[in-house]
Amino acid sequence: MKLEMICTGEEVLAGQIVDTNAAWLGNQLMNHGFEMHRRTTVGDRLKDLVEVFQERSLQADIILVNGGLGPTADDLSAQAMADAMGVPLVENQQWLEQLSIWGAERGITLTASNLKQAMLPEGAVLVDNPVGSACGFRVKLNRAWLFFTPGVPHEYKKMVSEQFLPFVKAQAGLQSKVEVTKLLSIGIGESTMAERLEKLSWPAGITLGYRAYMPYLELKLIARDVPQAQQVKAIDQAIAALGDTVVARNQNTLAAEVHQLLLNEESTLAIAESLTGGDICNQLVAFAGSSHYLQQGVISYCNEAKMSLLKVTEECIEQETEVSLLCAAQMAAGVASVNTLIRTTDFAVATTGIAGPSGGTEEKPVGTVVVAVKAHNQVYCQTIGLSSQRSRTYIRDISVAIALDMLRRAIIGIPPIAEYHYITRINSAVYPISELLA
Amino acid sequence: MKLEMICTGEEVLAGQIVDTNAAWLGNQLMNHGFEMHRRTTVGDRLKDLVEVFQERSLQADIILVNGGLGPTADDLSAQAMADAMGVPLVENQQWLEQLSIWGAERGITLTASNLKQAMLPEGAVLVDNPVGSACGFRVKLNRAWLFFTPGVPHEYKKMVSEQFLPFVKAQAGLQSKVEVTKLLSIGIGESTMAERLEKLSWPAGITLGYRAYMPYLELKLIARDVPQAQQVKAIDQAIAALGDTVVARNQNTLAAEVHQLLLNEESTLAIAESLTGGDICNQLVAFAGSSHYLQQGVISYCNEAKMSLLKVTEECIEQETEVSLLCAAQMAAGVASVNTLIRTTDFAVATTGIAGPSGGTEEKPVGTVVVAVKAHNQVYCQTIGLSSQRSRTYIRDISVAIALDMLRRAIIGIPPIAEYHYITRINSAVYPISELLA
Repeated sequence: MKLEMICTGEEVLAGQIVDTNAAWLGNQLMNHGFEMHRRTTVGDRLKDLVEVFQERSLQADIILVNGGLGPTADDLSAQAMADAMGVPLVENQQWLEQLSIWGAERGITLTASNLKQAMLPEGAVLVDNPVGSACGFRVKLNRAWLFFTPGVPHEYKKMVSEQFLPFVKAQAGLQSKVEVTKLLSIGIGESTMAERLEKLSWPAGITLGYRAYMPYLELKLIARDVPQAQQVKAIDQAIAALGDTVVARNQNTLAAEVHQLLLNEESTLAIAESLTGGDICNQLVAFAGSSHYLQQGVISYCNEAKMSLLKVTEECIEQETEVSLLCAAQMAAGVASVNTLIRTTDFAVATTGIAGPSGGTEEKPVGTVVVAVKAHNQVYCQTIGLSSQRSRTYIRDISVAIALDMLRRAIIGIPPIAEYHYITRINSAVYPISELLA
Repeated sequence: MKLEMICTGEEVLAGQIVDTNAAWLGNQLMNHGFEMHRRTTVGDRLKDLVEVFQERSLQADIILVNGGLGPTADDLSAQAMADAMGVPLVENQQWLEQLSIWGAERGITLTASNLKQAMLPEGAVLVDNPVGSACGFRVKLNRAWLFFTPGVPHEYKKMVSEQFLPFVKAQAGLQSKVEVTKLLSIGIGESTMAERLEKLSWPAGITLGYRAYMPYLELKLIARDVPQAQQVKAIDQAIAALGDTVVARNQNTLAAEVHQLLLNEESTLAIAESLTGGDICNQLVAFAGSSHYLQQGVISYCNEAKMSLLKVTEECIEQETEVSLLCAAQMAAGVASVNTLIRTTDFAVATTGIAGPSGGTEEKPVGTVVVAVKAHNQVYCQTIGLSSQRSRTYIRDISVAIALDMLRRAIIGIPPIAEYHYITRINSAVYPISELLA
């Protein structure tokens, strides 16, 4: 079965918006065991739309069309499809009634533009849109079913999940049950991961998929008609092969995992950031409920701020510099107790280092990063050495990931310092908190 | 002249990566006065590639092909193009020499995979890649020139800018000079902006383009063969019509503009964030050189942190709550002077508010945000009311933008509190710094 997508709209074609709807569909299809065959992106010209509908309908079995169902003059998908089929547009009574209800609920008098959204090619099958004024529809032309969806992302995603994917499954005559487990990893590249996994044997029905989005590499285990026990075994086998590089299951980011753990444990957190500049804090505050655990953050960008706000000692800066195990440890201990109105936080995390492109020395080149995590009465620190050739963004992103992973490990009670694959550790230390605050 | 793009690669088609190369090209073409006609995305199958090259070569005049020039087995663009033309692959001597130099410089012995990158369809014109091992090339088939580029973004962008765009211009026989001015705006929607601008008269050769990327709306003034004086007049006319909503010229973000201003002025900055959670700080630290002005940031997420770290008074919290003009003012004044080892910073910015989805009250619903900016001896504050229906992300993003814009205005010496279009101001105040620190 050949699946294609047609994306419409000048703003997508001209790059005024990045086509995330397209990437999302590719991912969804993969999660359900289907493969996309071709994607065609065209603008809003009627002639181009008619041409592409006719052309692709000769080649594909199912085509998802996205966009062009809105109320304005440049929304031409229904008209173009009618022209491509050589049929008129006719008023769909069912959607007309739905629109009246939709307008009444919002106190909106329906205009001619709104009513246009109930005009579908003759013979089209209505596809409900429970969250918007643009209905979807599907029609058969030549060998293909063309399935029309709105461009607004949340309306589109709902329609794809609830109606398009079941339609594809029914057309494919599949009864198979597809389940996907996502393992989030850091510090390992795609070729290394593939090499480790592809030499193992996997139960029939399991396929592996990879998706890199810095600083993460996501592994998908797609199980089609695989019994639960075998799936569990396959997941365990992947985790065993990948070791510490696996940092979360079915989460998109480490911040999401850490947020959930801190909420579950009812623990408190403080954050001291130098090169990461507030990014760790910001990623956690993005989640509602972070106020339950996050007490304070300090971005101690200059050394005076480290000393004045976090009680890093002058001796430490003079003897060890600000990029040292001791400095990171003092920062973590300091930020945990800087708020004199509440008790010391359960956990604290601190980062310091050289993000570049300048500021490196021979002894501590760009890419030298120290991360410390305070867990109850201990502070765990490590210095990592990233390539000085990498960008400031890369160095900062990896630093945030390592910090969040050390924190995650501390919260679940395993050693905070872990073995990734391509992250080089320069040194490490553990300090009792009493020693740092003395 | 019909311009198309063909994107290749399973990872693009399957949505494992979002196709930002495609959006970038659309933008570049628009900036140079050209229009993209169609984009086709296919995977790595040889048969599909051959088919799409033949098919599109009958329809378009110039086709940019992206991806599939790497050294691995699934990089098939050159082979597919040779098959589509019915010619063999032949070794390109010039690129072979280039590869030898490239390998020698890096101490790499060239493998068969590397050498494959010098095999081009017979008759192809070499396109140099000064930053990578994959050369580009172009060939003529049917009515089209097909121009092949590598998928690696920085190699691709360099080749497009330095070689593809000049080629397109030459093919188009255009001598016209296209200049683009970008105006970054906040607090105004696309329909309002279009309404204000489209009723004005514009010199011949000026076209307007819009691009929304939250929280910004970018206006492009594209001038084709327009004399300098008329361009300046057009830009001034746009700025006059859009007023305070225009916040920067030829910058992608407000953070970039503020960063540049602070560097130029050699001023210092401190940041206190509550609902924005470190995002203001993080956006500035993303730029190299931010250490020249940024002294410290405090994320005072709980009230105790506001009081303990920033010297917000207990009376203020009790009588006015933490979401008040006075609290934001005290936060700004406090963070400017919290670092006792250096003098008070020239500027400071503070945010506090309710990002939701819970935590609102009848008096202060979700979306109530207070922003304060300290400029030398004054602190300027305003409360804005955003819709409580909007997402946490939206509320935080707009808050960051307003804070950075108030700061920007303070640095260039105009009143920090401005009139945007869709941002509702609830109240505002100005405090002398002496009053806040007393």
